[in-house]
Amino acid sequence: MAEHMDPEEFRRAGHAVVDWIADYWATLGQRPVTSQDPPGALAAALPAGPTAHGEPVAALLADLDALVAPRLTHWQHPGFFGYFPANTSGPSVLGDLVSSGLGVQGMLWASAPACTELETVMLDWLAGLLGLPERFRSTGPGGGVIQDSASSATLVATLAALHRASGGRWRQVGVDRRYRAYTSTEGHSSIEKAARIAGLGRDGVRVVAADPQTLAMDPDALRAAIRADVAAGDVPAIVVATIGTTSTTAVDPVPQIGAICAEYGVWLHVDAAYAGAAAVCPELRWSHAGLEYADSYCFDPHKWLLTGFDCDAFWVADSAELVEALTVLPEFLRNAASDSGAVVDYRDWQVPLGRRFRALKLWFVLRWYGVEGLRAHVRSHVALADRFAARVRADDRFVLAAPHPFSLVCFRLAAGDDEASAGLLERVNATGRVFLTHTRVAGRFTLRLAIGSPLTTQAHVDDAWELVASAAG
Amino acid sequence: MAEHMDPEEFRRAGHAVVDWIADYWATLGQRPVTSQDPPGALAAALPAGPTAHGEPVAALLADLDALVAPRLTHWQHPGFFGYFPANTSGPSVLGDLVSSGLGVQGMLWASAPACTELETVMLDWLAGLLGLPERFRSTGPGGGVIQDSASSATLVATLAALHRASGGRWRQVGVDRRYRAYTSTEGHSSIEKAARIAGLGRDGVRVVAADPQTLAMDPDALRAAIRADVAAGDVPAIVVATIGTTSTTAVDPVPQIGAICAEYGVWLHVDAAYAGAAAVCPELRWSHAGLEYADSYCFDPHKWLLTGFDCDAFWVADSAELVEALTVLPEFLRNAASDSGAVVDYRDWQVPLGRRFRALKLWFVLRWYGVEGLRAHVRSHVALADRFAARVRADDRFVLAAPHPFSLVCFRLAAGDDEASAGLLERVNATGRVFLTHTRVAGRFTLRLAIGSPLTTQAHVDDAWELVASAAG
Repeated sequence: MAEHMDPEEFRRAGHAVVDWIADYWATLGQRPVTSQDPPGALAAALPAGPTAHGEPVAALLADLDALVAPRLTHWQHPGFFGYFPANTSGPSVLGDLVSSGLGVQGMLWASAPACTELETVMLDWLAGLLGLPERFRSTGPGGGVIQDSASSATLVATLAALHRASGGRWRQVGVDRRYRAYTSTEGHSSIEKAARIAGLGRDGVRVVAADPQTLAMDPDALRAAIRADVAAGDVPAIVVATIGTTSTTAVDPVPQIGAICAEYGVWLHVDAAYAGAAAVCPELRWSHAGLEYADSYCFDPHKWLLTGFDCDAFWVADSAELVEALTVLPEFLRNAASDSGAVVDYRDWQVPLGRRFRALKLWFVLRWYGVEGLRAHVRSHVALADRFAARVRADDRFVLAAPHPFSLVCFRLAAGDDEASAGLLERVNATGRVFLTHTRVAGRFTLRLAIGSPLTTQAHVDDAWELVASAAG
Repeated sequence: MAEHMDPEEFRRAGHAVVDWIADYWATLGQRPVTSQDPPGALAAALPAGPTAHGEPVAALLADLDALVAPRLTHWQHPGFFGYFPANTSGPSVLGDLVSSGLGVQGMLWASAPACTELETVMLDWLAGLLGLPERFRSTGPGGGVIQDSASSATLVATLAALHRASGGRWRQVGVDRRYRAYTSTEGHSSIEKAARIAGLGRDGVRVVAADPQTLAMDPDALRAAIRADVAAGDVPAIVVATIGTTSTTAVDPVPQIGAICAEYGVWLHVDAAYAGAAAVCPELRWSHAGLEYADSYCFDPHKWLLTGFDCDAFWVADSAELVEALTVLPEFLRNAASDSGAVVDYRDWQVPLGRRFRALKLWFVLRWYGVEGLRAHVRSHVALADRFAARVRADDRFVLAAPHPFSLVCFRLAAGDDEASAGLLERVNATGRVFLTHTRVAGRFTLRLAIGSPLTTQAHVDDAWELVASAAG
């Protein structure tokens, strides 16, 4: 028999690990946001393999402090303003801890009934919280599922769209026509990646122009692209519209795009990976207009809704289409519940077979915060972004590079070339007190300040502004 | 400002959740392995949405006890013998807890250097533990990465194989030729699913005959299939060989298959999802013969190596091919470290963009158990399977349906039809003391007893045998 960690040893060690995390959070604001070590520093500090006879948890915690934590970019740091946030929260960590402890695998309803049912209910709760169209609720032909990320959501939407566009032939014959996917110049790189994975290639992606001011997809350009493809004998399969683009949080005109998709019978997937969380606030639901046209929609609770990575919430209006596209049923997975047709088997809604019990962290977050707690969280970040943007607007040395409807502010130096703005970013990040990233807007190097950490307060945003303003010289 | 859970509240609630898990583990053996409730029981017990103002963690733990735990199939239960195991352990749960608490996102080296470097080193450690060929170590052109599952590993292997088979055209033009993937009749359903996702369709999968006795792929049949396809103008892209098939843990003859792949220039992916863990024991490494031919290989530490789902370890012999196949680089991800070429960005090794810090749970498991602890774990399960198989063999009412080189035993009633064996399985599972699943071997309904839980002892296996023997009447 191997020696395993018994429940009492787990209890003691578990308390120590919880304490380690509590201490990490309590001291996070005093650490540099990013590591200053060169590549390879951690790898070089680790031995060539594990010991023969094992080590205690205390040794691991010591090495976490000495070796790992100093070589991290701290995403939960109050001065982390990079990319989009991947925020988490105490309730999420605890819900995920329960998931780890239960160690169930929810590929089938039968393999973990509560894992499946809690997920269905949590996705209905989220649909209600965001005010999503009825068609996405599990009470009708639609329903929701947790994917690891919006990238995977885009991929499975693309696959279901190919199934539909082929009249069901695709499952058997594969990609035997020139199927096309559409997004704007501002669409996420995962759309091209999904098309590549699905066998459409770069040639299969039509990049539609965006409005130069709003950076939202131009619906006339979309219509023209679809028309031209149809005339050429290509097969429009899917349009991916974005609510809150990665570069600047632009909002595509989904009502117009949806009408075009309906006219041409093209699958509409709406990617609101970051900005979907905004819809918990009624005053921000304007951003979700037109969603009744969507065949599928996703957003990431793991970005801005306090739920740890990975947790993308993905809905379809007709789950039967998705399941038809993805199902393969080997004998060893057959069971009476599945055969009865009375249950959902989420393995058929995703790429992998296995599934972790991710609904638990959502359940913990939604119940611990409550509706008003989640709204207060989003509102506070939007207000902080407004505050930062007002400082930028009031300083002649800077310009705002795009509208800022949510909690991302894009800005650059008013004078000087791209190198000047890039140098500014480098100086600001070199302080170790904040971390911002960049994009390009209309070709110009642009700084992005994305507010997302629950630890970020007005003082941290004001501090970020002071650092930016003083680094601008 | 929203009210968040502060570090001290997290500390208190975290201790309570750890205690909940310790108590769950301590009482697991006394619970029924599976839920006896009909579909919808949990969903019906939940409210229509979260409350307005939030609830304490204690309310969540109470509902876990009252509503969730009774509706689970308990994968960590000592009487769980279904599917393949998805075992976890105290160290894994703790490592994953640290990952949740840090909340970093490792899509790029720059976005979390330690997340990337620890993963590279852990995959090198695992390669050493399993005695994998040098070509998979990160010291050369090869290297390893964590995927969520073997399904995803098969998918990315298929994509890299298409990139190679197309001479690099596939990225641009997609699937414009009849690419073919090969596996045996015993290959996992994820191989067909990967081919479908990649746009090859069901027609793109060649199902090669297996030896009727060993259920291992027939290399002559593989050669014949490749030859016929080449003659027909089809393009052989990938062969997926299996070490430890899902149905019976058959081991494909990788040395012969590898030689054929080398001859025809076809990508060889070896799927050892379950049985890879066996290679930590030198006496079981015969199962991995021929691996030096493989372009890619994977196994699941989350199946039989005490690491919680999700954790598939995937290696390639040439990581540049994989990265070329999958990379898309938008401006917002550009950074100095990536531009320098000195770092690994694991986003280019997988389907999603985002990544959780999954190497931590591996690090905790490998260090806490040590090499000998892991070997003892595998050996104890192999010995228990031998013991159970000996009972089956000694009882005239039963026959073993296949060899049992690892910890899975396949058996059925010697007399009677499929309904008799299916009825036996139903009666055994109805006791609630054990959970077995089934497969078909040569068309016959066959019971599968897979040993995998760290809690399973000789007494539990003997109990399982008593239940089976008495239910056979």
